[in-house]
Amino acid sequence: MRYLFGSFLLCLVASASAQPVAIALHGGAGTIERGKMSGEVERSYREFLDAAVTAGHRQLQAGDDGLDVVVSIIQRMEESPLFNAGKGSVYTWEGRHELDASIMHGDRLDAGAVAGVTTVQSPIALARAVMERSPHVMLTAKGAESFAREQGFPMIAPSYFETERRKKALDNYKRSRRAGRDVDVDYKFGTVGVVVLDRQGNLVAGTSTGGMTGKRWGRVGDAPIIGAGTYADNRSCAVSATGHGEYFIRHTVSRDICARMQFARQTLDEAAATVIHEELVHAGGDGGVVAVDAKGNVALVFNTAGMYRASIDSTGQKQVGIYGTAP
Amino acid sequence: MRYLFGSFLLCLVASASAQPVAIALHGGAGTIERGKMSGEVERSYREFLDAAVTAGHRQLQAGDDGLDVVVSIIQRMEESPLFNAGKGSVYTWEGRHELDASIMHGDRLDAGAVAGVTTVQSPIALARAVMERSPHVMLTAKGAESFAREQGFPMIAPSYFETERRKKALDNYKRSRRAGRDVDVDYKFGTVGVVVLDRQGNLVAGTSTGGMTGKRWGRVGDAPIIGAGTYADNRSCAVSATGHGEYFIRHTVSRDICARMQFARQTLDEAAATVIHEELVHAGGDGGVVAVDAKGNVALVFNTAGMYRASIDSTGQKQVGIYGTAP
Repeated sequence: MRYLFGSFLLCLVASASAQPVAIALHGGAGTIERGKMSGEVERSYREFLDAAVTAGHRQLQAGDDGLDVVVSIIQRMEESPLFNAGKGSVYTWEGRHELDASIMHGDRLDAGAVAGVTTVQSPIALARAVMERSPHVMLTAKGAESFAREQGFPMIAPSYFETERRKKALDNYKRSRRAGRDVDVDYKFGTVGVVVLDRQGNLVAGTSTGGMTGKRWGRVGDAPIIGAGTYADNRSCAVSATGHGEYFIRHTVSRDICARMQFARQTLDEAAATVIHEELVHAGGDGGVVAVDAKGNVALVFNTAGMYRASIDSTGQKQVGIYGTAP
Repeated sequence: MRYLFGSFLLCLVASASAQPVAIALHGGAGTIERGKMSGEVERSYREFLDAAVTAGHRQLQAGDDGLDVVVSIIQRMEESPLFNAGKGSVYTWEGRHELDASIMHGDRLDAGAVAGVTTVQSPIALARAVMERSPHVMLTAKGAESFAREQGFPMIAPSYFETERRKKALDNYKRSRRAGRDVDVDYKFGTVGVVVLDRQGNLVAGTSTGGMTGKRWGRVGDAPIIGAGTYADNRSCAVSATGHGEYFIRHTVSRDICARMQFARQTLDEAAATVIHEELVHAGGDGGVVAVDAKGNVALVFNTAGMYRASIDSTGQKQVGIYGTAP
């Protein structure tokens, strides 16, 4: 009897480990340097990242659908003013907020994206609605908001997105010599993204952002571009990116990491490192990615001074980090 | 002396063949069936395609920059009402014209794209300006038009894009049962694209479109998405796509053809055929691509009944075709 009970427990453990789960998330990459941040601010980031990754992992262990987990953890980050997504988004040149997001499911390569929305509280939820409830992948600006209204999303006042800290960043940017001539390397932290492997064996990736401080002309970065800021394919991996979006579009960064696994048989670590530390560094593009593969390996790779990040891999190992050297 | 002169000629031929040139273009893929088109209409398409590919090839032979060739041939197609790009663009659900285009240069992976422009005569020229004269890759809607104005592009009246034929297509679409519920498979012919290998050894790709008849909610298809509708990398190939854009985004079709060459060592033909006839057919996505590789091989591949197409490869062999069976 004791033997039987032992076997039963073993069986439970085996069936649980048969389909591992894993999660990785980022809150943006950039010139985040130790010593430039107060201990209190650093602690609030670490606590947030730890709590978010733990919550997501618990949902995955409970068997929640990967889409639900990605959306709920990203919404948590959108609602926090710590990150450049949702509340806390950076200001455009004209002093507005234009939000972008995308999501992708690795089973049938379903995807949804929105760009330039101004009155929807959760762009990632709208991206999911585009995927599930429209025949399209990408909707933009006023059109995306009409779709949101038709789908019953509440419209919020654009003032919801206002924060003093981001307003100052715009003012500083406009005073800087670069203003209007170049992209703003120092003010583009904070895009958020989550990738998961769920209990059903599906890889899901999502990304949400306010874009780049001082962006103009309806500029769209990599976050809402499938293949650039977000990609998921059960045959390889799920990736969410953050960084200098123009380079991530031109190098189809998220898709390329998956493509290197699929076509060149690289491991997740090799693929992510090659793209971020070789291809992008060679081109001059700064940023990073979080990624997870079908076995539940995770990769947190960036070529900037730091990246807000957290993960729990298939063995249950947790990482929470901000700076580059030590996690 | 005669011997020397002969050597000189041989040398000229050899140096010319040392860097071959090639061009391929499409005017859209779809349910183009023999017998459904009058002989006169068919002739006008064939004559247009033949003249365009011949003109482009002549420019390339003369040593013109690949960017100039791609833009000038696409502009020729944008100005023709035969194609769904520029003049001749299809109508949105609201009876407007929202144009998308993108361009990419394979040397440094420079790229530019515009989506949802309504008052710029040549979207491909604007995409090039975004690439060359802004720090961004993708500009959208009113913002893209502000940029165009600042760059001295003349603004034209949206009525420039009106054509009786496309107006009827919208009316028919709105009467059809699919209207508003599904994407319009039958009315999305006509996107145009050009890919070239120039004398300098650079691969360039460009795509321009009016999108999908009856499109709503600021829908963006694959044409302005780098990696989906357009990609060029000197290490592999240049691709321009046409078809059911949502599938082309999800499968990053243009980048995947290049990635299969780069990472899986497939030939251009193998890579294009695998993506179009296997990946896309399996998923249910219809359409096609034109592609050229660094040796001047060309591929004209589609899984629809027809695709308006023409090419001249590195050996000088010309193809002009409309239907699927015989070119």
